[in-house]
Amino acid sequence: MSWTIIATWRMALEGVSKGAELLKENGSASEAIEKAIRCVEDNPRYGSVGYGGLPNYVGEVELDAAYMNGDTLGIGAVAGLKDYANPVSVAKKLSEDRFNIFLVGAGADAYAHMNGFERKNMLTEAARDTWKARLKEVNDKNLSPYDGHDTVGMVVLDSASTMVAATSTSGLFMKKPGRIGDSALSGSGLYVDSEIGGATATGLGEDIMKGCLSYEVVRLMSEGLAPQEAADQAVQAFSEKLRRKKGVAGAISLVCANKKGEWGVGTNVEFSFVVATDQDAPQVYLANLENGKTVYRVVDPSEIEDK
Amino acid sequence: MSWTIIATWRMALEGVSKGAELLKENGSASEAIEKAIRCVEDNPRYGSVGYGGLPNYVGEVELDAAYMNGDTLGIGAVAGLKDYANPVSVAKKLSEDRFNIFLVGAGADAYAHMNGFERKNMLTEAARDTWKARLKEVNDKNLSPYDGHDTVGMVVLDSASTMVAATSTSGLFMKKPGRIGDSALSGSGLYVDSEIGGATATGLGEDIMKGCLSYEVVRLMSEGLAPQEAADQAVQAFSEKLRRKKGVAGAISLVCANKKGEWGVGTNVEFSFVVATDQDAPQVYLANLENGKTVYRVVDPSEIEDK
Repeated sequence: MSWTIIATWRMALEGVSKGAELLKENGSASEAIEKAIRCVEDNPRYGSVGYGGLPNYVGEVELDAAYMNGDTLGIGAVAGLKDYANPVSVAKKLSEDRFNIFLVGAGADAYAHMNGFERKNMLTEAARDTWKARLKEVNDKNLSPYDGHDTVGMVVLDSASTMVAATSTSGLFMKKPGRIGDSALSGSGLYVDSEIGGATATGLGEDIMKGCLSYEVVRLMSEGLAPQEAADQAVQAFSEKLRRKKGVAGAISLVCANKKGEWGVGTNVEFSFVVATDQDAPQVYLANLENGKTVYRVVDPSEIEDK
Repeated sequence: MSWTIIATWRMALEGVSKGAELLKENGSASEAIEKAIRCVEDNPRYGSVGYGGLPNYVGEVELDAAYMNGDTLGIGAVAGLKDYANPVSVAKKLSEDRFNIFLVGAGADAYAHMNGFERKNMLTEAARDTWKARLKEVNDKNLSPYDGHDTVGMVVLDSASTMVAATSTSGLFMKKPGRIGDSALSGSGLYVDSEIGGATATGLGEDIMKGCLSYEVVRLMSEGLAPQEAADQAVQAFSEKLRRKKGVAGAISLVCANKKGEWGVGTNVEFSFVVATDQDAPQVYLANLENGKTVYRVVDPSEIEDK
């Protein structure tokens, strides 16, 4: 049976490779996606997810994550979680419940604590130095502080035809305390239905949530569009609508896969992503917008700067 | 020019009446919806919104609200806000920003404080008594504590063809601290596009967010469905999907209006709502599911229990 794992950004490569190993041995989508995202969360090199994630304006690392089960539509999410090692695992546990599945702030911390999740000081020395330098720059030059908002998001189909999606991020660098983007929001940051397919987004969360883009892509696939058409159509049409209605569209990138394991990508900026399937070993791709359409090519991972 | 204001639950009647007065004098949708929702927030009789809202499991009133501008798609939202009188006004102010538009927990409190919003102890004596009694009942009888989750949500079209939507709620009674439902989530609790129409939902937020129902209703209206068809089709189809995939569907009710001022309602439980238009004075309706379809009739407000 076929399986597919697709993820946002080059930083997902090592995690996707681990997930693919599991999927190859008929492991479950649920296990593969959690392992893959934890791998990104645990790596301090990536400044926008988990350990080493860049802090908010007052120097706190606030983490958002979500998990969705495409068989049951079960969703779990946390936002503004502080100092727990693996937000995606907290979200996954919440997705098993019927009530109280989305927890924020101190309530999310309390839940993680009561359920025995690993505490960890998530602010690395490198992240603190980056924050201090940015704070100085913002104060000296009166800059807009916001920069960087790269969510790791993944969609997985396993050999038993179950699909899941999940996200994890430290959110917008220099955000106001308590700020949530799209990553934790079902329909915006992620959506999956095993009978159709799944999608996950990254970019300016404030704009992605205005279009419910992950839901829209799954819906377009349900009408018969191939994943590539669905992703590109949703991202380009919504970017155009934002420009028309608001004058400006933030960065929006999205990956998706359908229940057959076919995948697609849509973006309005340069965007790297990672795919592995039962046919293809894990590879990094670079996507760009050319003449109003998303085009992509395989690249050597070393071509893409880690961040 | 025509105008319409539609709102969830009988508790919206007084607010809708005030909003209708403004709309009649060519007031803006933005002003009308804020005034109407503040009226519900300020009334201590309503145990699920604002002052007098029922607290979470540990006795804290945690408030969620959102505001969406259908001209610009600007969204603002707060969740887990404590002890501010009018969450909808905080959400509305956030909707004017490009970044940091959705704030949760202590960060939402800090923003409201810095921006001069009115502080108020939102836990009334009556709400505290209800909470204490429920806590005792839950402990004595080992009940599931959750009960009551009635969001006030409104969609407004003004005579200048601007549409807005907004929500406000204290969320699920006895919720875990930090729990968010659908009310603050764009696409789930509310969605509006002045070129099409708007929708807002109430019921079990954990289930509503699995279907992005407000977005879906607006999308169905964009395909040419009348509001009544769009609302009913979305609610019934998704309830059926939940029963098939999860075995159970929570309460889901939704009201909507299109850019012509036509309105609709969809529900899978008994549900009251309020409508006023340039043709009709404010009236309370009671909707029910009969033979798989939503039916409704005008009722005397005294027939419906305030809560």
